[in-house]
Amino acid sequence: MAEIKSPLGDADRKVAGEALQGALIDLLDLSLTAKQAHWNLIGRNFKVVHEHLDEVVDLARASADDVAERAVAIGVNPDGRSRTVADRTQLPQLDPGYLGDDKVVAQIADLLGQIIARFRERVAATDEPDPVTQDLLIGITAELEKQHWMFQAQV
Amino acid sequence: MAEIKSPLGDADRKVAGEALQGALIDLLDLSLTAKQAHWNLIGRNFKVVHEHLDEVVDLARASADDVAERAVAIGVNPDGRSRTVADRTQLPQLDPGYLGDDKVVAQIADLLGQIIARFRERVAATDEPDPVTQDLLIGITAELEKQHWMFQAQV
Amino acid sequence: MAEIKSPLGDADRKVAGEALQGALIDLLDLSLTAKQAHWNLIGRNFKVVHEHLDEVVDLARASADDVAERAVAIGVNPDGRSRTVADRTQLPQLDPGYLGDDKVVAQIADLLGQIIARFRERVAATDEPDPVTQDLLIGITAELEKQHWMFQAQV
Amino acid sequence: MAEIKSPLGDADRKVAGEALQGALIDLLDLSLTAKQAHWNLIGRNFKVVHEHLDEVVDLARASADDVAERAVAIGVNPDGRSRTVADRTQLPQLDPGYLGDDKVVAQIADLLGQIIARFRERVAATDEPDPVTQDLLIGITAELEKQHWMFQAQV
Amino acid sequence: MAEIKSPLGDADRKVAGEALQGALIDLLDLSLTAKQAHWNLIGRNFKVVHEHLDEVVDLARASADDVAERAVAIGVNPDGRSRTVADRTQLPQLDPGYLGDDKVVAQIADLLGQIIARFRERVAATDEPDPVTQDLLIGITAELEKQHWMFQAQV
Amino acid sequence: MAEIKSPLGDADRKVAGEALQGALIDLLDLSLTAKQAHWNLIGRNFKVVHEHLDEVVDLARASADDVAERAVAIGVNPDGRSRTVADRTQLPQLDPGYLGDDKVVAQIADLLGQIIARFRERVAATDEPDPVTQDLLIGITAELEKQHWMFQAQV
Amino acid sequence: MAEIKSPLGDADRKVAGEALQGALIDLLDLSLTAKQAHWNLIGRNFKVVHEHLDEVVDLARASADDVAERAVAIGVNPDGRSRTVADRTQLPQLDPGYLGDDKVVAQIADLLGQIIARFRERVAATDEPDPVTQDLLIGITAELEKQHWMFQAQV
Amino acid sequence: MAEIKSPLGDADRKVAGEALQGALIDLLDLSLTAKQAHWNLIGRNFKVVHEHLDEVVDLARASADDVAERAVAIGVNPDGRSRTVADRTQLPQLDPGYLGDDKVVAQIADLLGQIIARFRERVAATDEPDPVTQDLLIGITAELEKQHWMFQAQV
Amino acid sequence: MAEIKSPLGDADRKVAGEALQGALIDLLDLSLTAKQAHWNLIGRNFKVVHEHLDEVVDLARASADDVAERAVAIGVNPDGRSRTVADRTQLPQLDPGYLGDDKVVAQIADLLGQIIARFRERVAATDEPDPVTQDLLIGITAELEKQHWMFQAQV
Amino acid sequence: MAEIKSPLGDADRKVAGEALQGALIDLLDLSLTAKQAHWNLIGRNFKVVHEHLDEVVDLARASADDVAERAVAIGVNPDGRSRTVADRTQLPQLDPGYLGDDKVVAQIADLLGQIIARFRERVAATDEPDPVTQDLLIGITAELEKQHWMFQAQV
Amino acid sequence: MAEIKSPLGDADRKVAGEALQGALIDLLDLSLTAKQAHWNLIGRNFKVVHEHLDEVVDLARASADDVAERAVAIGVNPDGRSRTVADRTQLPQLDPGYLGDDKVVAQIADLLGQIIARFRERVAATDEPDPVTQDLLIGITAELEKQHWMFQAQV
Amino acid sequence: MAEIKSPLGDADRKVAGEALQGALIDLLDLSLTAKQAHWNLIGRNFKVVHEHLDEVVDLARASADDVAERAVAIGVNPDGRSRTVADRTQLPQLDPGYLGDDKVVAQIADLLGQIIARFRERVAATDEPDPVTQDLLIGITAELEKQHWMFQAQV
Repeated sequence: MAEIKSPLGDADRKVAGEALQGALIDLLDLSLTAKQAHWNLIGRNFKVVHEHLDEVVDLARASADDVAERAVAIGVNPDGRSRTVADRTQLPQLDPGYLGDDKVVAQIADLLGQIIARFRERVAATDEPDPVTQDLLIGITAELEKQHWMFQAQV
Repeated sequence: MAEIKSPLGDADRKVAGEALQGALIDLLDLSLTAKQAHWNLIGRNFKVVHEHLDEVVDLARASADDVAERAVAIGVNPDGRSRTVADRTQLPQLDPGYLGDDKVVAQIADLLGQIIARFRERVAATDEPDPVTQDLLIGITAELEKQHWMFQAQV
Repeated sequence: MAEIKSPLGDADRKVAGEALQGALIDLLDLSLTAKQAHWNLIGRNFKVVHEHLDEVVDLARASADDVAERAVAIGVNPDGRSRTVADRTQLPQLDPGYLGDDKVVAQIADLLGQIIARFRERVAATDEPDPVTQDLLIGITAELEKQHWMFQAQV
Repeated sequence: MAEIKSPLGDADRKVAGEALQGALIDLLDLSLTAKQAHWNLIGRNFKVVHEHLDEVVDLARASADDVAERAVAIGVNPDGRSRTVADRTQLPQLDPGYLGDDKVVAQIADLLGQIIARFRERVAATDEPDPVTQDLLIGITAELEKQHWMFQAQV
Repeated sequence: MAEIKSPLGDADRKVAGEALQGALIDLLDLSLTAKQAHWNLIGRNFKVVHEHLDEVVDLARASADDVAERAVAIGVNPDGRSRTVADRTQLPQLDPGYLGDDKVVAQIADLLGQIIARFRERVAATDEPDPVTQDLLIGITAELEKQHWMFQAQV
Repeated sequence: MAEIKSPLGDADRKVAGEALQGALIDLLDLSLTAKQAHWNLIGRNFKVVHEHLDEVVDLARASADDVAERAVAIGVNPDGRSRTVADRTQLPQLDPGYLGDDKVVAQIADLLGQIIARFRERVAATDEPDPVTQDLLIGITAELEKQHWMFQAQV
Repeated sequence: MAEIKSPLGDADRKVAGEALQGALIDLLDLSLTAKQAHWNLIGRNFKVVHEHLDEVVDLARASADDVAERAVAIGVNPDGRSRTVADRTQLPQLDPGYLGDDKVVAQIADLLGQIIARFRERVAATDEPDPVTQDLLIGITAELEKQHWMFQAQV
Repeated sequence: MAEIKSPLGDADRKVAGEALQGALIDLLDLSLTAKQAHWNLIGRNFKVVHEHLDEVVDLARASADDVAERAVAIGVNPDGRSRTVADRTQLPQLDPGYLGDDKVVAQIADLLGQIIARFRERVAATDEPDPVTQDLLIGITAELEKQHWMFQAQV
Repeated sequence: MAEIKSPLGDADRKVAGEALQGALIDLLDLSLTAKQAHWNLIGRNFKVVHEHLDEVVDLARASADDVAERAVAIGVNPDGRSRTVADRTQLPQLDPGYLGDDKVVAQIADLLGQIIARFRERVAATDEPDPVTQDLLIGITAELEKQHWMFQAQV
Repeated sequence: MAEIKSPLGDADRKVAGEALQGALIDLLDLSLTAKQAHWNLIGRNFKVVHEHLDEVVDLARASADDVAERAVAIGVNPDGRSRTVADRTQLPQLDPGYLGDDKVVAQIADLLGQIIARFRERVAATDEPDPVTQDLLIGITAELEKQHWMFQAQV
Repeated sequence: MAEIKSPLGDADRKVAGEALQGALIDLLDLSLTAKQAHWNLIGRNFKVVHEHLDEVVDLARASADDVAERAVAIGVNPDGRSRTVADRTQLPQLDPGYLGDDKVVAQIADLLGQIIARFRERVAATDEPDPVTQDLLIGITAELEKQHWMFQAQV
Repeated sequence: MAEIKSPLGDADRKVAGEALQGALIDLLDLSLTAKQAHWNLIGRNFKVVHEHLDEVVDLARASADDVAERAVAIGVNPDGRSRTVADRTQLPQLDPGYLGDDKVVAQIADLLGQIIARFRERVAATDEPDPVTQDLLIGITAELEKQHWMFQAQV
């Protein structure tokens, strides 16, 4: 069975592929983390934060799909299996059990800040090797920074 | 901050809670596994299987959400963090890299068969302790068995 | 070519399969009967009854599809061929030619009463062998009894 | 004019009918109570709680309709007149005038807890007499318990 | 906690508030009455009248919401609790049990006629004190008179 | 009760009526046959053929409805009862049990070819007697021939 | 200013143009007549007939638009002014004042029968001169005959 | 058969009824006139004016329906038959044949101006007798004046 | 080029025109003010207030459009240029930089109160000169007072 | 691999096939021509004509698809490759560069006139060989003649 | 209360912030200017230009919102108050009173040309400091240039 | 008549214009080629590939429109006439007659690979001259590469 021929040379593909795989891990764990908070949340602002977290989940899932499909489109196999996500994620993990709303808002804001820093490195890294991949990463960064602002505004 | 008061007694809540937590792990890892196959798939039937896998993802995600919200509604904290999923999942993991369509179809069929067996045990276990939880699990089992048939039919 | 592996043991599958095949015949002939009345209806209440009958057709068709797909999902081949329906149906057949609206309303009410009695037996029979099949049959019974009430209310 | 023939025997019909009539009173007064709070609410969380209460109203109205139509479908006349609701309701009544948001959230959580306890008794009571009625009551209980969790989470 | 400042002076607010509270009772009991008939209806025109009554319910519910929110917007607390509705309603109550379609049509027509007469008094009373409240009452009167015509046309 | 006055003379009505009744039998049995294949299908192309068959079912059902309503509009009673369909159908019947996808595709292609031949005769026969009926039959023939091409293209 | 060049020769255009102008008058007066009945209707079946008449109005208006635009497309000016409609219409006029439902149903059925007879003449007349115009008239005739059947069925 | 009981006294009903009947004639002939222009239009601005005229038709038809239903709701029979419209209309009639776009725009602007003058008289006349009717006429006047502005702006 | 002929006399047009121009300035600056707060908001209730402010923006924009188009329809040129808005607005301006949620809620409530007072004067002023303009202003006042209530309820 | 069996004999298929292939070339080049004008248009009526041309593009594309699928359904291979379109088209080609709106309107009107003449020949030619193909061509001719009228009306 | 932490360093944030604030003023005044023209427009092309201007308004409003939210997401407070817009705008202001269509088209084309020149400077300025902001500005520039072309094409 | 003023200088406009014209030819011939395959396809995977090709057609058509409108927006006339497409296309042409599905999949994959290589050159070429044009080309390249992957995955 044939493999996917990349529109990129080997070196460029390697750089772009690593950026995309890193982004995939960030986004998949973001989706799991936000769902965990969505379910275990308590506090006076429960309803609003509960629904806001699902907007983050939707963003993380849709972006993960775009990122992984971009990876395979340039001939790089994305790896989003549970074991891989758990081993490679750099996100701080939430505590088990009930999570107070104020603390959740602060944690999500903090966690988005960390992810954004890595996305900005990926944007810089892919500028030369693949402007198409870079454009996708820029678009996702814009959305993450918008959410980052909205969570910070509530702290 | 207050915890959620359960409509169930402690023993019933424990049984129902374990059934729901087990179901959650199955469904979250199913969603990750089906996405992994969705992205790395190759083969003559790529387009159909690629799209069919997303139906499984949608089912797994929606069911996981129902199951986790049911858990907290009976006063049990669901745990769907990446580390928990990776450590507790009983699903066989896919190989990294490209995945041939025929093999994927067979693997998903097999994997659904295993999940269904565990769901049928959970349905039996929750009959007395909580018919509301049981009704939810029966509904998800019906959907999983429908997908199981459709993947088997292609083997 | 592989057959569908049932999630049920042989004895349970036999009971559930017979319940589903019996339901399929009832529902397919109900859909044909209600259409026949829909087309040949006359009388002062033509417009309302004409449209009401199509609600019954929609219910019968959707339920027949669910029932047949449930059968194959547990490894039993549904048989909905015209010859099978004609030979096995227990529904009283409508007369050919024009059908007065009052008589149609009474006949459909009567016919729904007969089908419901058989569905209640199937609900009872599948309780132990397969709660998933039972849950589907309960759901269809609820809809049939709602239509039964509405046709009776017009007699 | 004909009455509706019940698919149930007299004893079963009596049990199921009482469960449904009791549920109807609970749900109708829940819809009036939640609207009263929706209108007279004040407090910092006004907007969120105001809209959340309308979700409860929608649930109560839709469930009341299902419950009453199920009653007549088994040959029992539902009674949802204002005098009947006022005389038979077991719900604690809200004070007149403005209602603070925190107090409303606590009262609705408490009131849902009481209704759920009665619904669980009705689910148990209808298991033998009528699984179709039981299935409807289980479905409504699941939704009430989901709302119960969400109001408790805000206390 | 602050009360709502009225855009009206005290005397005007009193007149407008009484008109709105009276309208609220009429509309809430209309919604309960039409539902009661919707459920217990029998007769040859069951299907049409059953559905027509739900149009009245929708109108009554939407208008009640507008009226109550208008009341609080002018600093008057609306009271729509079940006890208040039962004690203050001027609507003739339906008999319990099955209700024949012809009789229901006549009763609803009669009952709408009574409500309309009271609404016309409220329209006249609010002309000077609050043209905004009057405009809302005129709009509801138009809809009630349209339904009144349609029920009369069937007598 | 009055019968439907035909816009056609007796001879023309007879010809058009026979064409429509023949078409009705073809279309009703096509809908049952395609559903039977939809349910019992197995094979590597299961998903595509399973869904394609439902397009045929939709076409057959919608066309049968148009044909039967056209018959009664010209004063001829359509007969679509299960017994009539089983006795008069000229379609070759499918085997019971599982049906391989390649064989199903070939059978449906063959069966559509037979139906089309009869429809073309009906188009020719109704040209003079009733151009309105002919126009309907031409439209259905076009859709059947489109499906015929698509099934042949897969053989 | 330019006139519209006809795709037809003069003789054909004249025949087609007269057929279309005749159809326009029939359809415009049908729309006014059905509205008149829609408004002044009384009787036990008011609601159903009231709504059914609006289906006729929609059909008449849409068909009139198609017919008039077809006329101008072949270079013939349609005339649908009120004076022209009143002077040339062949439809029997309704009485002023209230109209009983049974009588309205019979009158509309009768009136549709007359229009259909003229449409069938127009279909025959345009066969040679312009098959495009004929095809439009056939399509409208089919819809008129469907309504004709449905009104007759209620007599 | 019963007539519709008016919520108005005889004198008020007479005034309101005449206002509504006059409005009905204006609106029905406006709808026919705008359609006539829509079909026979030529000129460089054909496309825009052709579509703009259909907005006028939609407004005229919807308003005519509201006006006629309001009339019968107050116990007055509206008369919208073609003969009545032709005899009583005060609108200047369009010439037959092609109509240049500039001239049409000017004629419609002029004609709307005349209708508006009569509507303003009707608004004044119904102030005391029936504020509900007045409110409807005010709403239609607002829409007519908006169209009046837009046609004038093009002159 | 022609100007728009007013349906009003000069004196009435002047009064109505001034009311509308005043309303336009209020509404345009309300839309800019609410957007400014929407963007610069911070605080624990950020998400709810952020979205609530956009409802105010939508209301202000839609109402401004209606008001300005009404002005030109009566032959008065609306002026909504930025310089005009800045010079004539009577609204207190927000501070630059971040805006705390509680303060924003209080400011918007206060500001709506001021606008409503001016709208009530305009409603009174236009009663005689132009009931059509008055009706538009009444409708907007109702919406503004509803928002006023909801913002006050959160203080 | 199998070819598509035609429902037509060889002679009829040849005639119908040539008509369809000719129509395909006309329609594909019409779609390219109208897009070329859509893009390069200038003039005072730019906006209207720009959008009107896209209606022609949509019509041409949808009709080309129907025509080509009809060809293969009767066993004739349609040829719509760019070289074939360029070599066989009979449409006059537009000049390169900017195109004035008046000239474009005249050219499209002229070009539609030429296409219609060829379509009318194809309608005549296919009457005997294949009424199904003829019916498709008649339907497209009607749409082309409607556009022809509308472009002529603007000249 | 916390401020928003910027993902950018101080120098980059300053550059990006100024670009965004400049863009905000351009877009807000564009929205007010286009609305002013939308309302006061007269001339033969009124309808088309009136609607075209609203497309510009929609573009300007949506872009202003994106630009302002981007500013706060990088920790810069956008200022869109009426006074600020009036004082800082560089757009030439429209004359008061009626505006002829040709002149409006030319003015909008000219004004868009000026805005585009400033946007191209902002695109260049933000390339290094913040590619995410640059990407947003590029997207808006593309839309503005598309509108610029369409207005020029009509001059 | 005025020409479109470019926001670019002459040299930049020339580079961007050539990139856009080249892209236009690629995309238009891609749309014709994919349609040709869509129509003449045969083989076991007919249904899936037939529908997949229409996704390519939609992408090619929408992108061609964007590219051509971008060209004219920078003052360059796009040329998409059939003769130009046929003469300048660099795409390998499909054979006439039936096309096997496997071969079509391979050809489309190959052809997309060639187009992508040219698009990547255009992306590089437009970086300096016009980042707005480049951004559009990057977006289209991303979509083409996604389709390229999906077709390769099926080889």
